Formats: sequence, C-alpha cells, structure tokens
Amino acid sequence: MQYRFSKNIENTPKSFIREILKLTQTPEIISFAGGLPNKKYFPVEEMREATNRVLSTGGDALQYSTTEGYLPLRQYISDRYKLRGLDIPVDEILIVSGSQQALDLIAKVFIDTDDSIIIEEPSYLGAIQAFTLFRPQFHAVKLEDDGVDTVALEETINRTKAKIFYTTPNFQNPTGLTYSLEKRIKTTDVLKRTETVFVEDDPYGELRFIGEHLPTLKSFAHDNGILLGSFSKVVAPGLRLGWVCANKIIMDKLVTAKQAADLHTNYFAQRVIHQYLTDNSIDTYIKKISDGYKGQRQAMVEALKKEMPAGIKFTEPEGGMFLWVTLPESCKAMDLFHIATKHKVAFVPGEPFYADGRSSNAMRLNYSCSDEETIRIGVKRLADAIKEYMG
Amino acid sequence: MQYRFSKNIENTPKSFIREILKLTQTPEIISFAGGLPNKKYFPVEEMREATNRVLSTGGDALQYSTTEGYLPLRQYISDRYKLRGLDIPVDEILIVSGSQQALDLIAKVFIDTDDSIIIEEPSYLGAIQAFTLFRPQFHAVKLEDDGVDTVALEETINRTKAKIFYTTPNFQNPTGLTYSLEKRIKTTDVLKRTETVFVEDDPYGELRFIGEHLPTLKSFAHDNGILLGSFSKVVAPGLRLGWVCANKIIMDKLVTAKQAADLHTNYFAQRVIHQYLTDNSIDTYIKKISDGYKGQRQAMVEALKKEMPAGIKFTEPEGGMFLWVTLPESCKAMDLFHIATKHKVAFVPGEPFYADGRSSNAMRLNYSCSDEETIRIGVKRLADAIKEYMG
Repeated sequence: MQYRFSKNIENTPKSFIREILKLTQTPEIISFAGGLPNKKYFPVEEMREATNRVLSTGGDALQYSTTEGYLPLRQYISDRYKLRGLDIPVDEILIVSGSQQALDLIAKVFIDTDDSIIIEEPSYLGAIQAFTLFRPQFHAVKLEDDGVDTVALEETINRTKAKIFYTTPNFQNPTGLTYSLEKRIKTTDVLKRTETVFVEDDPYGELRFIGEHLPTLKSFAHDNGILLGSFSKVVAPGLRLGWVCANKIIMDKLVTAKQAADLHTNYFAQRVIHQYLTDNSIDTYIKKISDGYKGQRQAMVEALKKEMPAGIKFTEPEGGMFLWVTLPESCKAMDLFHIATKHKVAFVPGEPFYADGRSSNAMRLNYSCSDEETIRIGVKRLADAIKEYMG
Repeated sequence: MQYRFSKNIENTPKSFIREILKLTQTPEIISFAGGLPNKKYFPVEEMREATNRVLSTGGDALQYSTTEGYLPLRQYISDRYKLRGLDIPVDEILIVSGSQQALDLIAKVFIDTDDSIIIEEPSYLGAIQAFTLFRPQFHAVKLEDDGVDTVALEETINRTKAKIFYTTPNFQNPTGLTYSLEKRIKTTDVLKRTETVFVEDDPYGELRFIGEHLPTLKSFAHDNGILLGSFSKVVAPGLRLGWVCANKIIMDKLVTAKQAADLHTNYFAQRVIHQYLTDNSIDTYIKKISDGYKGQRQAMVEALKKEMPAGIKFTEPEGGMFLWVTLPESCKAMDLFHIATKHKVAFVPGEPFYADGRSSNAMRLNYSCSDEETIRIGVKRLADAIKEYMG
C-alpha cells in the first residue's frame, strides 16, 4: 500500500555518520569516525554497587515517576553548578533522555515550519537532525578560532528574526574549538541586545584537560539561555541521561513537551546514577578520563604535526573528544574518505556538519576511542591517503 | 524578556491528570485516579540479579548502542508474538522509551499541521497529548461495547481522508472495553479497504484475566498496522521500555525520527530487562499480577453493583487496569469530582479523554493500585458523593 508520510519526516535525512560507520566497521580499519567515550573508563563496578543499593530499598525505582525527574538528582546538578559559580535553582532543571532529547524538546517548544534559527558553521549534526524535523530555515554563522563571528551573528539575527541560536562553546563537536572569555561576553551581549534565546550545548565542558574552566554563556544571560548538560561523556552514555536548564517560563513548556514525548526519563537509571554520584567522587573519575583523553589528544596532535603534508590545518582542542582537520580548499573530504578506507583509516567528512549539506574540505577526527599507539599508526595512514589524494 | 514559542506548544495543554493528581495526593483520600501498576508485584530481587549479571560481563551495557535497540531483546519480542501466532520479523521491531515515545515518533512520521487523524471516543489522553503537538484535525468515532462503530469509522475516513486511526483494542484506557473478534475483523476490513494506517496500542493485552486472548488487528492487516507494546504494565514502568512493530517502509522513517529524538533507548535498561526475561518466566509473573488485578477488579465491580444508585452504568473489563462509570446525561463528572474529594475519594473525570475537551458525564476508575478492602470503602464513598450530587 501507499503511505502518506509527513513533510517533516520526508525532509529529514538519515544520519550520515550512521551510514558511514557501517562502511568502517571491520577490524583492520582504524576508525577516527566514531564519537564514543572510551569504554575502558566506565565505572562498571561502582554502577553495579549503586544498582544493588537502589534496589535493596524496594521497588520504588521501578515505578512511574515525575516528568521533571528525580529531585535529588536535580539537586545534585544544581549544587554542582553552584561550585562553578552558576546559580540554577532545582525547578529550572529538567532531566531528559540524553542531551539529544533536549534538542527535540526545544525544537517542539520554539520551532514552527519556516521559523529561522541560527547554528554555528560547522555545527553538531545531531542538532541539525533534531531541528530539521521541524523544518526551520537554518542560517549558519561562521565559527572563528575563539568562537562565533559576533558581527555576523548580530547581522543574521537582525536580518532573519531568528528564534534560537544554537552553540557549543566548549570543545565543540565537530571542531574541538572553544569560545574565549572575551567572545563569551561579546556573544551574550549580542544575544541580550537582540532578545534572542540561545541553546548552550555543553556535553564536554567537564572534560577540559588544558587551560582553565570558563564561565557558561548562561551565566552572562540567564533568561536568554537554555543550558544542556549530560552524563554521557562523564559517566556512561548507555544510560541516556542528560538535563536542561531553563527559566520557569520556558521550563513550563519543556515539561509539557517532555510529558508528551515519553512521560519521564528512565527512573531506575536516574536513581542508579544518583546513588553512584553520592557514593563516589565524580571529580576523581573525571580526572581519570581527562588524563587518558589528554594523552590521546597529545598523541594525535603530535602525529598530525609530524605526518601531515604542507597545507593541512588542524585544531588543537583544550578538551573534549574531537579535532578538526582542514584540507586545501580545492579538496573534497568525501573523495578522500574513499581513498582513506583503502589505507585502512576512517574519519567523518565535514558534510553532515553543515545544514545545507555542502561538500566540505574538512573532516572530524575522534581521539577518545583509540590508544596512543593506534592513533600514531592511524594518522600515518591518513597522511598517506592525503598524499595520494593530493597527488 | 518576551519568548516566541511555537504554535505547536502553545496549542498543547498540560496534562489534566497531572494537575488533578496534585489535588488528591493526601493520605486520607482513596484515589482511583492514578494509572500506575501495583508496586507490590514488581520483581525487585529478580531485577537486581539481572543487573548484576549484565554488569559482571564488563561495561558494554553502559556504552552507546544502536537506534533500533538491543537485538536479543527484539528477538525475544518477535518470538513471543510467534507463540500467539503473529509473525513480526526482528527488523520490524524498534525499541522505544515507553509506548508514549512511539506515539511521538508516529506523529512525527505521519502528521503535518491540519492532517486528519481518527481516534476512538473516548481515547487515551497520552495519545491525544502526543498528537496535539503536531496540530492535526482530530475526528472521534464512538466506541461501542464491542469496539469502534465501523460504519461511522468508514464514513469518517472517506470524508476526512484521515491518515491514521488510533485504537486500543484490549481493555482500553480509559473505558476498559475490548474489541470482539467480529469487530476486529470488521474494523480491519474497513482499514484495508480504505488503505488507512492504524496504530494499535496494546499495553494491557497480556493482562487478560477473563476470557480468551483475541488476535491483534495487525494480524488481519499487517501492512496497515503499527502495533505498540510495552514492558511498563507487565514488568516495570520505571524502565520506560516499549516497542513498535511496523513494516520496513514505515520502520525506516520511525528509525530516523527515533535517532533525532534521543539516539536510542537506555541500553543498560534494555540489557537488564532482557537478562530478566531470559532468567525468569514472564508467564508466571504475569499470572501473579493478573490474579491480583482480577481480585481487585471483582471487588470494584461487585461494590459498584451493590452501592451505585439507579441510572449509573459501568463497564466490566476482562483485563487491564481501568473501568468506566457513566452518570446520567445531565451530570457533569467534573462537578462530581469536587464533591467526591470532600467524601475523600478521587477519580479522573472524562474530559481529558476527548480531543475537544468537552464536559463529560463519565469517569475513569483505576483498580490496580488499591487492595480489595480499600476498593470497597472507596466505592461506598463514591456512591455517597454521587447521591449527594444527584440530590
């Protein structure tokens, strides 16, 4: 029979990365294409103990719960922000099924078809996908080394009347770039002046291994900012636990959307992670991951410096899981991708990080999932592929 | 500052039940307003053992996973349907974060603003809420004692070109009504003839305690039907685990929507429930719950027969968690609600189960969460309230 699907879904492409990962899942390929945290750091035994403690008190953790989420977990998040000097009351925190769900809820709450929204260029492809389902007009503003181009941002807001600016100020996926303090202030000045809501996606913020933590954009513009956080990169992604911070007027809408979406986030997982966070030092654990990732990042940066031919640029991230390699302008990362798989190395070509799907001369490399020796071998293979491609 | 929310969200009401439950959460009120499974039946110790087994093999269960869901869990669901004579291949099963999420994904895949959809009258309020976010035109077709009015269904489909018919054939929430075999055949004949997609929501199907299991609508019209299932009522709702069965063309779209919504459902919970299902007999467990609910249902039906004044009708469900009480036409259940709370008993007035929010002379009573003695006392209080209201 013939199905009559919505324009919303017909308009939404499948995940590009998902398709690409299928091509690279053979053991002989060294893949920098993934985006996973490193499994070897997961606190498995601690989570097992936390689960036993939660279930030893009866079946409460298996029952339906509130849409907003487990109150002590929200309190924990609020307290942790306070340590960083950010005041987020508990009732401005909503637990969601990973940050990805926050993007879906925000899209529901703000976007009607053809509304304008602004993203960084390049931007996180999961956000592009979540927003695309609601058919906005995307406007991209270039990311400079120290954050978004604020002159272009203000011009674009004024021209398009955009409802939302979506940003990842810390160790952005895909570029690894971080906003400077000055750029944070300039950006929020623009957003306040133009009364624009911004979505500050911060899944990697805790994973800083070079330099000092910088204040969130939200701390400069509380009522404009929707701040997203996640336990996926600092505890375990399989639990799908994230959160949204927004002021009460926005929160009221988000809660309605959340309830329609899935009633509430897995309560068992909320209870288990809260028990884990109560019984263990998250800072000790974060230090362990950060130390590991820092070594892997160093290995990748050094290998790139050593192996890459002239004309290749790359970012040197201060945290997070990714860096961004830019080929000369005439190159196409997608063409290189096919040569690279012959050299048994994989990456994500830049295309999916642009809302218009343009062809790109850049690529994303992940360093969180490979050990240092593998990184060195993989970068060597990548350099060989680039040399072959550039002739 | 002024926020510019979407028309989608401005159009979506908060959950009525949620607001009402706040009024009834004092210990002296006997509440038939909830919709929770009975916590005393949760397999807490078995779940603890399952978790320990899953985490004893390492951290795999804490990592990101596939959008479609854990393959052995999907296989389990497929095998279980096979025992009932229904052939659903594994690749036509998607794990979702509770059936509620299935409704959200289906809305995304089928509904553009002003598309027509058909619901039963009355219908499940969670479905009305999920669909409302996408601003369809709702058309309601009356539910008769043995299922939907099929003549009106066909006329409505032809008149409105509706894209979807949403139905709960087993022990419907809110009415407790069940489609007869004859009505299942007649209904699917209409849906096939008119090439209409239907959503068959079946969270309670396993909880039949009177009569024989009847075939799903999907078994009569495979390509038209999207069948939803859930572990919330037969294992534990806190895990937020449900599934969708749809043919490959529809599944492809649902997977894209699922990925944009939350990447995938909590993988840890999927692994734990699969371990639980592997190590325990779900049938033994379902029998335990069903026996308990059957006694509670009997207690409620008998108390209603004994206590209710003339002119009050009620359904006698063969399974599930709810029954439906209808007052004389001139009555308003919402007015009765306020009198009932004075008599220390609560229920859900019919309003939220109608897409047009009309005032209703009916109410939903839940029997799964109260013991038999409490049910008898509560029904007596309700009868007193009705007598006071009807003067």
